Amino acid sequence: MEIRIVLVEPSHPGNIGAAARAMKTMDLASLHLVNPLRFPDPQADWRAAGALDVVASAQVHASLNDAIGDCAFVAGTSVRDRHIPWTVKDVADFAQDVASMPEAAKPLAILFGRENNGLANDELAQCNVHVRIPSSSIYGSLNLAMAVQLVAYELFKARGQVQVRSAWDRAHATNAEVVAMYDHLDRMLHKIGFFDPGAPRTAFTRLQRMFSRIELDETEVQILRGVFTHVEQRLKS
Amino acid sequence: MEIRIVLVEPSHPGNIGAAARAMKTMDLASLHLVNPLRFPDPQADWRAAGALDVVASAQVHASLNDAIGDCAFVAGTSVRDRHIPWTVKDVADFAQDVASMPEAAKPLAILFGRENNGLANDELAQCNVHVRIPSSSIYGSLNLAMAVQLVAYELFKARGQVQVRSAWDRAHATNAEVVAMYDHLDRMLHKIGFFDPGAPRTAFTRLQRMFSRIELDETEVQILRGVFTHVEQRLKS
Repeated sequence: MEIRIVLVEPSHPGNIGAAARAMKTMDLASLHLVNPLRFPDPQADWRAAGALDVVASAQVHASLNDAIGDCAFVAGTSVRDRHIPWTVKDVADFAQDVASMPEAAKPLAILFGRENNGLANDELAQCNVHVRIPSSSIYGSLNLAMAVQLVAYELFKARGQVQVRSAWDRAHATNAEVVAMYDHLDRMLHKIGFFDPGAPRTAFTRLQRMFSRIELDETEVQILRGVFTHVEQRLKS
Repeated sequence: MEIRIVLVEPSHPGNIGAAARAMKTMDLASLHLVNPLRFPDPQADWRAAGALDVVASAQVHASLNDAIGDCAFVAGTSVRDRHIPWTVKDVADFAQDVASMPEAAKPLAILFGRENNGLANDELAQCNVHVRIPSSSIYGSLNLAMAVQLVAYELFKARGQVQVRSAWDRAHATNAEVVAMYDHLDRMLHKIGFFDPGAPRTAFTRLQRMFSRIELDETEVQILRGVFTHVEQRLKS
């Protein structure tokens, strides 16, 4: 399904380029512009960085209806509350809805309003849903391209294309390996006189608690034991 | 708890202003800059829009360690995979962790790297966790301020659903204390001959990675340094 990002009357070409880059970083490619003040423009290209293809393939329309006429679903982004309450969804919930739409569906349009005034009431009235981006109650004025970035990010996350957790490069140490390391540490600490009479024995417990939080891997246990062995060897010589 | 956004050597002042605006829309206010190429600059003010106060109160540092020395927890943002995998968290999961930290904790720093090169390996090695922002496998190159916006947004969302973790019995060590401990460890390892010629230097990086996962408290750092000191004293006698 095509997800179409529609910028309604953007004033600053830099925002068009930045929106294109924001889209491409989240695997969106369809950019439509309704009456942009300046486009094409070198500022748009500069801010697009590696997303020049998205800028180059952007389609310009003379009216909003031209831009969304073939769309089966239209969402309007908004930070302000409106007179007439609409179906309002948080962007994360909206993204979940979109991810579950059939692949073969007609295009979905997401509208972003003017830098200063957002979307007009008659534009919002054409939307199936109003999408709200959570933001500060003190200063909630998101830059246009930032709003595109956040919506694109939530859509990307919802599509489940995310692979985040990097595999660890070593196996976890077994409990037996860790216990043996503790014994070694204890011996070494005695040899260097760390446990002088009167010194609080709780220090060793604290060291154990500290290591227990790490989920040590095999190599780390070997390195630690290598350090202890080196200390012991130097003491003998 | 102060959440400190640290931009490391940003090249474009426009990105500084845009990052400030991104922060303010998500109720963040503490902006720190390490060696910005141009700052202050009219471009930063222009892109900040209603967040001029965040730009005006930004603190400039000559080194990363100056910027994070008093921080108890340091997170580094990264899109690339590194040679030695670190603890990596998805930004949404990281935001949940942050929301549950005790209110009275020392500052938390979130590092954002250079526009072209991100964070250097030695900078990433100072982090407790690497935060990854999900993005396209084809073109994942987020603009710097966009990355700040996404992290700030997730932090804002997570603050909505908070359960604060029980306080630890000791204060977290600051970054400066941990760095000094690393220096001490390095000296001690040299003295005991751990770094024989031909031995892989990666062992030290692995030790750093290991300690970075613990979120060391002050007492633990003192105990570790006590151990190192004892080793050094025994070598002399």
